[in-house]
Amino acid sequence: MEYRKIKDEDGDHDVASDLESLKGKPHTVASSNIALVGAGSNERANWKRKGVVTCALTILTSSQAILIVWSKRAGKYEYSVTTANFLVETLKCALSLLALTRIWKNEGVTDDNRLSTTYDEVKVFPIPAALYLFKNLLQYYIFAYVDAPGYQILKNLNIISTGVLYRIILKKKLSEIQWAGFILLCCGCTTAQLNSNSDRVLQTSLPGWIMAIVMALLSGFAGVYTEAIIKKRPSRNINVQNFWLYVFGMAFNAVAIVIQDFDAVANKGFFHGYSFITVLMILNHALSGIAVSMVMKYADNIVKVYSTSVAMLLTAVVSVFLFNFHLSLAFFLGSTVVSVSVYLHSAGKLR
Amino acid sequence: MEYRKIKDEDGDHDVASDLESLKGKPHTVASSNIALVGAGSNERANWKRKGVVTCALTILTSSQAILIVWSKRAGKYEYSVTTANFLVETLKCALSLLALTRIWKNEGVTDDNRLSTTYDEVKVFPIPAALYLFKNLLQYYIFAYVDAPGYQILKNLNIISTGVLYRIILKKKLSEIQWAGFILLCCGCTTAQLNSNSDRVLQTSLPGWIMAIVMALLSGFAGVYTEAIIKKRPSRNINVQNFWLYVFGMAFNAVAIVIQDFDAVANKGFFHGYSFITVLMILNHALSGIAVSMVMKYADNIVKVYSTSVAMLLTAVVSVFLFNFHLSLAFFLGSTVVSVSVYLHSAGKLR
Repeated sequence: MEYRKIKDEDGDHDVASDLESLKGKPHTVASSNIALVGAGSNERANWKRKGVVTCALTILTSSQAILIVWSKRAGKYEYSVTTANFLVETLKCALSLLALTRIWKNEGVTDDNRLSTTYDEVKVFPIPAALYLFKNLLQYYIFAYVDAPGYQILKNLNIISTGVLYRIILKKKLSEIQWAGFILLCCGCTTAQLNSNSDRVLQTSLPGWIMAIVMALLSGFAGVYTEAIIKKRPSRNINVQNFWLYVFGMAFNAVAIVIQDFDAVANKGFFHGYSFITVLMILNHALSGIAVSMVMKYADNIVKVYSTSVAMLLTAVVSVFLFNFHLSLAFFLGSTVVSVSVYLHSAGKLR
Repeated sequence: MEYRKIKDEDGDHDVASDLESLKGKPHTVASSNIALVGAGSNERANWKRKGVVTCALTILTSSQAILIVWSKRAGKYEYSVTTANFLVETLKCALSLLALTRIWKNEGVTDDNRLSTTYDEVKVFPIPAALYLFKNLLQYYIFAYVDAPGYQILKNLNIISTGVLYRIILKKKLSEIQWAGFILLCCGCTTAQLNSNSDRVLQTSLPGWIMAIVMALLSGFAGVYTEAIIKKRPSRNINVQNFWLYVFGMAFNAVAIVIQDFDAVANKGFFHGYSFITVLMILNHALSGIAVSMVMKYADNIVKVYSTSVAMLLTAVVSVFLFNFHLSLAFFLGSTVVSVSVYLHSAGKLR
């Protein structure tokens, strides 16, 4: 699962420009009489956009996990993960620029979609990238305390940390029923991943637990902070925001290459060990990163967490057909709990 | 867990007469001015009574499970389960009569607490006892299709069947949130019981599933039907209702002795294989049976299901201290899901 490190970032591409044009539509209708109708269709467009980006994220995340299984079957990874991360950021940057050139052609350059920025706008953009870098570095040390399957289970702490930080930093309220749903989401995902060795996680030593909690907080904080940055200027084009996020992502990942894989890259070359599947995974990670950004812009971190959790379950179901996986009783129970949790999230909406 | 067969019945005793006198109190205060205060204290008394019987059921059910573990450690059961069942019914009958004699002494004989009955009142009383007998007989056959731990897992279907039949037969509505809670209760209890062999349940053949579902329906139906009988005459003294329920329980269990254990009883005697712990278990089952009846009278089947589920979790926690049990990750996850479910049941109350 080491490739997972590439994940957990943000972005934009072609779908983006489609969505931007969708977003633009209601604004063109603006007579005082049609205003109400406009507001209704605007809301519908918002919902549609939210649905599209959420589905895109779910599908991309689950195909990502399937690619991981596929590549594992094909053999061990031989390439440097940091170079792949760097390429993902670069690809996302390129896709954001591509989407922007289209938008400039169609709508002209405006204050909201121009690429140039101010120090005031851009100063916070390196923070999420720095947090992710720090988290990824920590990841190398946690394996001294927890094995890989145990780490997969502990990663579900991200769900709780995201909820808590979402509440504290973005000051958005979840209802009690939604909190109940969120706790269930964490329990359900963990239950679905249970296997005969899972109990070993309980023997994790104190430093292991502390690192897992710190990593969950870093990951949650990075996510929530990204949402805060993106939402701070609602009218600013998401592709521009993404561009700047990804520029810093590239920079920090370049640092990671130097820290972790300098020797391998210097001796064997940047692209050593790349295969067709590596390219597919990079493409997939770039697109899902962009989908995450879109979800941050048009929905929120809570939707992101639900979407990636449901993706995990989808992956398992698809793997039954693709790889002859057997679903465990724990998986059925966990999936049911997750489904109820999704229901509670929507049933518990604050009015 | 064979001794569990004794469980799943209904009853009354000394606590009963205390509760009856509690119930009586508000009625003695009846001036028009104090009526409102009376209504308030009546409601408070109702809540208190509901709480007391629910806690009693929870504690008795978990001590029951602990007695089972204890007796298993002490060695195999040598006695005939049917004779123990018969004695449980007899003891419950005796305790109901004892409570009634006290009530007669304190309040005198009234229409509500006289023991004599009409055909119209008593005709439905044999039905729950007959259903339990049928279910217990089926239990011998299901083990051809499922092993004992698998059966413990399938028994959680009772939770769902009770909810569904409660809705259909008693026509009482649960809110959607409460339904969500009920599904979670079933998932949580099953999760808490997961072990490395649980997946075998998924290989249960079709006849095994059908029998498990039929047994869950029988058990749920018996519970819901008992509630219907007891609640049909709200002012009728619970001890009288219990007395008649248990008389038929004795009769049907006598039939079970003849069908299942005639040879053993004829050759080795009625009390063969009884030990101190057997006596304790019979006492415990009688008291928990009575607590179940009380919960049916003053609360409902849903409260009963929650109470016995929470008891299962309590048992595991107590066993950590008593028998050095180790709690699994699955147990923690299941317990959390059950706790959230309890919260949802109360948060989701229909107004």
